[in-house]
Amino acid sequence: MVKTIERPLDLLNNSKGKEVLVQLKGNKQFVGTLVAFDIHINLVLDNTKEMQNGEMKKSLGLTFLRGDTIIYVSPASTALQKE
Amino acid sequence: MVKTIERPLDLLNNSKGKEVLVQLKGNKQFVGTLVAFDIHINLVLDNTKEMQNGEMKKSLGLTFLRGDTIIYVSPASTALQKE
Amino acid sequence: MVKTIERPLDLLNNSKGKEVLVQLKGNKQFVGTLVAFDIHINLVLDNTKEMQNGEMKKSLGLTFLRGDTIIYVSPASTALQKE
Amino acid sequence: MVKTIERPLDLLNNSKGKEVLVQLKGNKQFVGTLVAFDIHINLVLDNTKEMQNGEMKKSLGLTFLRGDTIIYVSPASTALQKE
Amino acid sequence: MVKTIERPLDLLNNSKGKEVLVQLKGNKQFVGTLVAFDIHINLVLDNTKEMQNGEMKKSLGLTFLRGDTIIYVSPASTALQKE
Amino acid sequence: MVKTIERPLDLLNNSKGKEVLVQLKGNKQFVGTLVAFDIHINLVLDNTKEMQNGEMKKSLGLTFLRGDTIIYVSPASTALQKE
Amino acid sequence: MVKTIERPLDLLNNSKGKEVLVQLKGNKQFVGTLVAFDIHINLVLDNTKEMQNGEMKKSLGLTFLRGDTIIYVSPASTALQKE
Repeated sequence: MVKTIERPLDLLNNSKGKEVLVQLKGNKQFVGTLVAFDIHINLVLDNTKEMQNGEMKKSLGLTFLRGDTIIYVSPASTALQKE
Repeated sequence: MVKTIERPLDLLNNSKGKEVLVQLKGNKQFVGTLVAFDIHINLVLDNTKEMQNGEMKKSLGLTFLRGDTIIYVSPASTALQKE
Repeated sequence: MVKTIERPLDLLNNSKGKEVLVQLKGNKQFVGTLVAFDIHINLVLDNTKEMQNGEMKKSLGLTFLRGDTIIYVSPASTALQKE
Repeated sequence: MVKTIERPLDLLNNSKGKEVLVQLKGNKQFVGTLVAFDIHINLVLDNTKEMQNGEMKKSLGLTFLRGDTIIYVSPASTALQKE
Repeated sequence: MVKTIERPLDLLNNSKGKEVLVQLKGNKQFVGTLVAFDIHINLVLDNTKEMQNGEMKKSLGLTFLRGDTIIYVSPASTALQKE
Repeated sequence: MVKTIERPLDLLNNSKGKEVLVQLKGNKQFVGTLVAFDIHINLVLDNTKEMQNGEMKKSLGLTFLRGDTIIYVSPASTALQKE
Repeated sequence: MVKTIERPLDLLNNSKGKEVLVQLKGNKQFVGTLVAFDIHINLVLDNTKEMQNGEMKKSLGLTFLRGDTIIYVSPASTALQKE
């Protein structure tokens, strides 16, 4: 279901256009469609939702997330179903 | 509604002259018109308002925000309506 | 049982395709199959499980973990049996 | 009232010789005349006053502020009147 | 008893194949045989034991420790006897 | 009373041989004669005194201070009189 | 009593073979003979003692201290007598 992942950024590349779950430091979670990323793991998500305890706290639309505060990024297709 | 976003900074470039919501570490939020940014995500906002719990705490006018403390930047047109 | 380890990253290279235990700052633990890593210790795990106190808290499938928050990575064959 | 701001540092350049409000991490605020800055956002202020809750806590005269701890810098003409 | 130490990394080089005590930020301690290190002070230990208050908390076998969280590394021959 | 300050480090250069007040993160303060500094804002002070709440806590003589923990450096002639 | 100090690292160079007091973040103190240092302020101390409230908490012998956690280094001849 995924293209070959040689380097970590390949997973981000494979996830473009798909929904991802992004966990930040300080217990913030975002769900949105991955639009773009760079080597600093700065991300742009679309239809971004800030989540807390599995519920939507705020809808943010297009959002630039600084890589510095990110703990993990997981394609939502696998991450969200099993929660 | 947005120009093509190839890299994360493209969203900041598209947002110049528009109102953005900036979330900082330590629970600080700013709303203002994006005037300028650089690769460190240092920003200049105009008509900057420091927000807390959805209310304006302080009006700051033109403000230089250091990128180091930024968690996310979201164009206000999408972020603010849905709060 | 392991190939020669000259530099620290050799252990990560030897662990590709194997289950690893990843300890993050802030008391988060992940278990998953190591798919890829880079010099920043960014990792991609598959079949990732977020653990807490030895129990699975969340199943994340494929996950990109930013190296910045990692404390240690240990092949699960040695780490998990002895807990 | 301001010269063109193409990049964030242009605002600091425009603010030389003027009073600025500097917010640091850890809830410290300084007010002083901006004398100099560099690309690390290290600043020199003159007639520096350390503020707390809108009151002067300490007068520091000429002061070197390390950029690393700065959250924002705002020209005092806009920031201070509206507090 | 030690070879000449001109630069700090010489001590790590002299300690290869020997047991070391590694103190991390956040009060974590590890004891293990030093297998490899690099200039970021990333380490690989073998027969790694996570310690707490002088008692073994967990046995980790081969472990990659990110240099970023390390406070000190001390050859166990001198460090452990005197505790 | 001061030579021209074009860049922030000029203030440190002007302060060599003079008493400075150094504020560190974590509420530590030092007073001493500035002997040397570098671009990382590492400092050497002489006749260094660690201060707490305006009282001397410890006398340290010659001391190397890592720039990383410094918030501000202020020539004592202006900073100390007005406290 | 000291050789000329032009740059901060000169003090560390002058202190080789002498006892130094090293203050780390998180309130840890070490006393030991300075054996080696590098530009990251990584240190090797010999006869290292971890101190707490002026009393020896642990004897560590030869120890590699990562520069990243260091606040100050002071030659013990001046620092320790006056405590």
